Amino acid sequence: MAGNSFGDAFRITTWGESHGPAIGVVIDGCPAGIPLRKEDIQNELNRRSPGQSSITTSRKEPDKVEILAGLFDGFTTGQPISLLIKNQDVDSSKYEKIKNLFRPGHADFTYLAKYGIRDYRGGGRSSARETTARVASGAVAKKILQKNKIAIIGHTVQIGLIKAEKFSQKEIEKNFVRCADKKAAQKMVNEIHQAKKTGDSLGGIVEVIAKKVPPGLGEPVFDKLDADIAKAMMSLGSVKGIEIGSGFSVSSMKGSEANDELIIKSKRISTKTNHAGGIVGGISNGSDIIARLAIKPTASIAQEQRTVNRKGRPEKIKVEGRHDPCICPRIVPIAESMLALVLADHLLKQKIASLK
Amino acid sequence: MAGNSFGDAFRITTWGESHGPAIGVVIDGCPAGIPLRKEDIQNELNRRSPGQSSITTSRKEPDKVEILAGLFDGFTTGQPISLLIKNQDVDSSKYEKIKNLFRPGHADFTYLAKYGIRDYRGGGRSSARETTARVASGAVAKKILQKNKIAIIGHTVQIGLIKAEKFSQKEIEKNFVRCADKKAAQKMVNEIHQAKKTGDSLGGIVEVIAKKVPPGLGEPVFDKLDADIAKAMMSLGSVKGIEIGSGFSVSSMKGSEANDELIIKSKRISTKTNHAGGIVGGISNGSDIIARLAIKPTASIAQEQRTVNRKGRPEKIKVEGRHDPCICPRIVPIAESMLALVLADHLLKQKIASLK
Amino acid sequence: MAGNSFGDAFRITTWGESHGPAIGVVIDGCPAGIPLRKEDIQNELNRRSPGQSSITTSRKEPDKVEILAGLFDGFTTGQPISLLIKNQDVDSSKYEKIKNLFRPGHADFTYLAKYGIRDYRGGGRSSARETTARVASGAVAKKILQKNKIAIIGHTVQIGLIKAEKFSQKEIEKNFVRCADKKAAQKMVNEIHQAKKTGDSLGGIVEVIAKKVPPGLGEPVFDKLDADIAKAMMSLGSVKGIEIGSGFSVSSMKGSEANDELIIKSKRISTKTNHAGGIVGGISNGSDIIARLAIKPTASIAQEQRTVNRKGRPEKIKVEGRHDPCICPRIVPIAESMLALVLADHLLKQKIASLK
Amino acid sequence: MAGNSFGDAFRITTWGESHGPAIGVVIDGCPAGIPLRKEDIQNELNRRSPGQSSITTSRKEPDKVEILAGLFDGFTTGQPISLLIKNQDVDSSKYEKIKNLFRPGHADFTYLAKYGIRDYRGGGRSSARETTARVASGAVAKKILQKNKIAIIGHTVQIGLIKAEKFSQKEIEKNFVRCADKKAAQKMVNEIHQAKKTGDSLGGIVEVIAKKVPPGLGEPVFDKLDADIAKAMMSLGSVKGIEIGSGFSVSSMKGSEANDELIIKSKRISTKTNHAGGIVGGISNGSDIIARLAIKPTASIAQEQRTVNRKGRPEKIKVEGRHDPCICPRIVPIAESMLALVLADHLLKQKIASLK
Repeated sequence: MAGNSFGDAFRITTWGESHGPAIGVVIDGCPAGIPLRKEDIQNELNRRSPGQSSITTSRKEPDKVEILAGLFDGFTTGQPISLLIKNQDVDSSKYEKIKNLFRPGHADFTYLAKYGIRDYRGGGRSSARETTARVASGAVAKKILQKNKIAIIGHTVQIGLIKAEKFSQKEIEKNFVRCADKKAAQKMVNEIHQAKKTGDSLGGIVEVIAKKVPPGLGEPVFDKLDADIAKAMMSLGSVKGIEIGSGFSVSSMKGSEANDELIIKSKRISTKTNHAGGIVGGISNGSDIIARLAIKPTASIAQEQRTVNRKGRPEKIKVEGRHDPCICPRIVPIAESMLALVLADHLLKQKIASLK
Repeated sequence: MAGNSFGDAFRITTWGESHGPAIGVVIDGCPAGIPLRKEDIQNELNRRSPGQSSITTSRKEPDKVEILAGLFDGFTTGQPISLLIKNQDVDSSKYEKIKNLFRPGHADFTYLAKYGIRDYRGGGRSSARETTARVASGAVAKKILQKNKIAIIGHTVQIGLIKAEKFSQKEIEKNFVRCADKKAAQKMVNEIHQAKKTGDSLGGIVEVIAKKVPPGLGEPVFDKLDADIAKAMMSLGSVKGIEIGSGFSVSSMKGSEANDELIIKSKRISTKTNHAGGIVGGISNGSDIIARLAIKPTASIAQEQRTVNRKGRPEKIKVEGRHDPCICPRIVPIAESMLALVLADHLLKQKIASLK
Repeated sequence: MAGNSFGDAFRITTWGESHGPAIGVVIDGCPAGIPLRKEDIQNELNRRSPGQSSITTSRKEPDKVEILAGLFDGFTTGQPISLLIKNQDVDSSKYEKIKNLFRPGHADFTYLAKYGIRDYRGGGRSSARETTARVASGAVAKKILQKNKIAIIGHTVQIGLIKAEKFSQKEIEKNFVRCADKKAAQKMVNEIHQAKKTGDSLGGIVEVIAKKVPPGLGEPVFDKLDADIAKAMMSLGSVKGIEIGSGFSVSSMKGSEANDELIIKSKRISTKTNHAGGIVGGISNGSDIIARLAIKPTASIAQEQRTVNRKGRPEKIKVEGRHDPCICPRIVPIAESMLALVLADHLLKQKIASLK
Repeated sequence: MAGNSFGDAFRITTWGESHGPAIGVVIDGCPAGIPLRKEDIQNELNRRSPGQSSITTSRKEPDKVEILAGLFDGFTTGQPISLLIKNQDVDSSKYEKIKNLFRPGHADFTYLAKYGIRDYRGGGRSSARETTARVASGAVAKKILQKNKIAIIGHTVQIGLIKAEKFSQKEIEKNFVRCADKKAAQKMVNEIHQAKKTGDSLGGIVEVIAKKVPPGLGEPVFDKLDADIAKAMMSLGSVKGIEIGSGFSVSSMKGSEANDELIIKSKRISTKTNHAGGIVGGISNGSDIIARLAIKPTASIAQEQRTVNRKGRPEKIKVEGRHDPCICPRIVPIAESMLALVLADHLLKQKIASLK
């Protein structure tokens, strides 16, 4: 009801504020018998963590995960898994000054309107720091996917107006922007440096792909696989749009063009094209699942902006602090995690859809 | 768990197959004391029904709603509301011939992969006919919105390559495509006739807007208002993408441009621009909520297509029957209903977010 | 949230008022591939239906079930199953007279206090007629149990002060009170006739047993098997207590006596005694699951009673109509259904508890 | 789905094993604006903690609560509240010896049957230590009840064969067994000492009462107030039965006796008797809510018992360690917490049942 849980069979509940003592997540429904080491989780957290490069925030958050419950002798026990990451390098003083102002593009006004109270330190619960818990639990979900041979790939396909034009998977983790096109990556980095210099920020488009998903995942008519992916992605603060397969460009196709012809490939039923992005009628069809996310430019910018205060009086605001000029590279592991959470949930649910 | 329910506080559960005896929905959580007449529901069903014009299917489905429970003396009682719409004009014979073939763009293969059995008559549960139940329950949700002075408007903004360039609300229900631009509407109708002649179909983009939504709706961090809207819309079979506010175009903006400046308008805190589409941090901010949906072209086309059968052998298929050459005009009331369902649910939940 | 659904994986949503047009239930989560005939459901409804004998109400409710969705070629399809039972022999006139009075022992006052409106005809939603939907869906649950070789037996163990002292399963359906002790049954019937004559009613104790339940069902720590059974049973209007295994008498045992010694029986781990009633730590252990329910005497009695009206003024009331002088015999199939619903739900959930 | 969450609107998710690093709970749905101090929680934990007297276990568990999220300036913020209690005084060595044996009366066999793996140290998740999290979150629920002037009282009414015969509320917290009858309390303590000497244990009956609950709480037809209380209580490992109001004794009453006559008391509609225990048709009627729980004797006893090992061979077992010879006094605050959790949840839900 209150919004801090996600998933049914594989269900996470996250908690924690940006400047509180810690961030955490409880996973309920992870089956017993999954091998899990702390490093499985730490590696994913490291991919998300700030301070990785010249184009991410310089905050130091080592983000060391602690496993407090649910493991025994290196295996999950079927009991809730509790993960905790302590907050460090917290400096709330900069927020004290602006506690009565509403930062443009941030949830300051809306949280106050909703709850009548808000923890203004670092954005409180609305901070992107909350995604730490998503990535930690996503790492556990990925272990379930691995057992089912499903792989997830995330990459940046656009930053500002620069678009990737090639896809070379091995390039992704080699550059600061996690782009599969080496040349475009370089341009993107330059563009970000440029924006940073002017106290501004950039957005972009991130794509996530799931490979070898078996046909049959998804629960019509509301908990369709694409519906749950859409919700998962749109629940990220910086995402303003989501499309599956050919997405918005399918709107201007004709039916004869958009329909994916069914064929036999490697002795299995498959499709010639993949405009559907691997999901038909809300159920996976065995083709790659492809989702693209519209990422808005980081709301925290160094430039002075106009706004109002709690009493409704016009004010000027400068958002100090250390912020990512472009969040796309860090969204990549976060979006992968959200996709992993959705797929793990649906893999479990599919076990009880039929008695065949 | 199994996917046929939507919403928490205002929760619907739909049932029924295209060629079964009836389609229906149970609404659990509608507060007591809402005035409700059968016509409130019937009017919305009529907007959705086929056979409205030369560009929709010629099937005759009067879609008369029956209210079986939850009303007393013209008011809701707080008990579950049960709505039933009998199926008529059902002709399953055309499906008998193709029962072993997988129609391209349809969920034939995926339902079989998931459940090991499928009701092939008219697409069974995967038929767009299932949306009748959504519209019927959406009409009840709209009554709750009305009490809160919230209005919902849906319209077609693009069909094929033709885009609306003006917005005149009073035009919407005057033309066959529900477009707010009279001239564009005419071109769209022509384009659809053209596609129909060649046995093909068109897609488009539909926009829905909610006006006068109070600030504070949405349940971070997963059940954000935009996340729930994204799920609601993507759970429609023909939707392949969803964006909020400036959506995908925000990706190429700079932060200084994308951030909506806070101002005072009519003595209330508001924003100068509305790139956010009325939702920040997953919570409504009082501005118009705007969502745009990418609609794929109707999968059922008259042209012969290639596919495979259940045994994996290549076959040719002609999908007979009476189908909409473009579903956009009928998606308008359906998308409105989905938005109404989400907002009614969040209006109720907001009553318990705070003790202020 | 609003209370008309039960179960997670195998989930029912019921609807309908006593004097409305119909009563119904939607089952979401029934796996595909279960053979199901209308008679499977009708037979259980017949066991529940009134007018069976001299000691049940003389109302005529043929309670013919209609299957509106979810079946194809005699098998479940994984889609929601919609069942509807039309109300007949409805006479609301007697309720018109007492619409402003609160019947003692009935939910008249509490429904009005909760919702501010109530459908007073026949008790509306609070009527025992609502259990028709439970029995209809319980019949479907029983089909799943059958596939897993689980059998459910219900019987009356006490009426008023008369207790059953023997257990002969074949007697149960042979007498009016569904008691497994032939002699006690006769005394119970006499006792009921006696109460009826004086315009009074009787309560009793009903026991339900599940045999051959595999070890492992139940979801600690809140959705324990006994916790879900307790909720299921206590959600019946006439149940005021529930105990598992030795139940309340275990309170006065010593630990050395109450602990069931583990032994090997038929090559499987079992227990020597069964004080636990087949459930330890909230999980089935393979022994018989045994639950006993305290049934209150029927609230509707012919004697004049004192009460107040809506304005709080003292009044006298005579509850006319045709009522069961003792509901126990009809509670038997209802309690069996509730147990079947719980077990079917947990059987499905157990499929995803472990990857072993 | 997986069983570690309880409640809808006010929802807790608990985690942690007996001998793991910590036990914890996340509360989602606590409204913003509730004043909450660490002591509010600590005081309740202290009432539950072991080592209080000569008749409880001598384990030292200071059970200091840490609040990790959801508070700001002394008030709840509407965000998830995360509570953590570190485990101390953990000695797993005694469990090493019996790791292949199934303790009678414990969930050793059933957890293994369910999950294929079990954390045998201190019972793992099945330990009564898990209730720490229930009490911590129950303390938060009690703050909501306080705001609504609802009070909860728990007390022991029977231990072994000794029954309380008076009710003097001020006595409850003055004696070791939390009994409201001073004389009976002394006999109970003696009885427990006696059982302890013989290496045995005792059970009993605990009663919880909620006073000043407004009429209208409860969500028919499945989430009835009594149904949710029954589930809450039966989800405690030591509870084998639950009754509301006159409970099992109502079974042998006549209707004319069991029906509570409606009267006017202090200008409000009330009842002359309270056989119903404050709940009719699943909804509170304003009278005291009364529930009684059958508590089994502690399963861990010092006497040697017979059992089998994992391979099914007969063995003898002595359960070492420090255990409560009778758990009733510590069940009192735990049962109070469960009742508080149910009532807080239903208080919130009742805010959206009606638009009156």
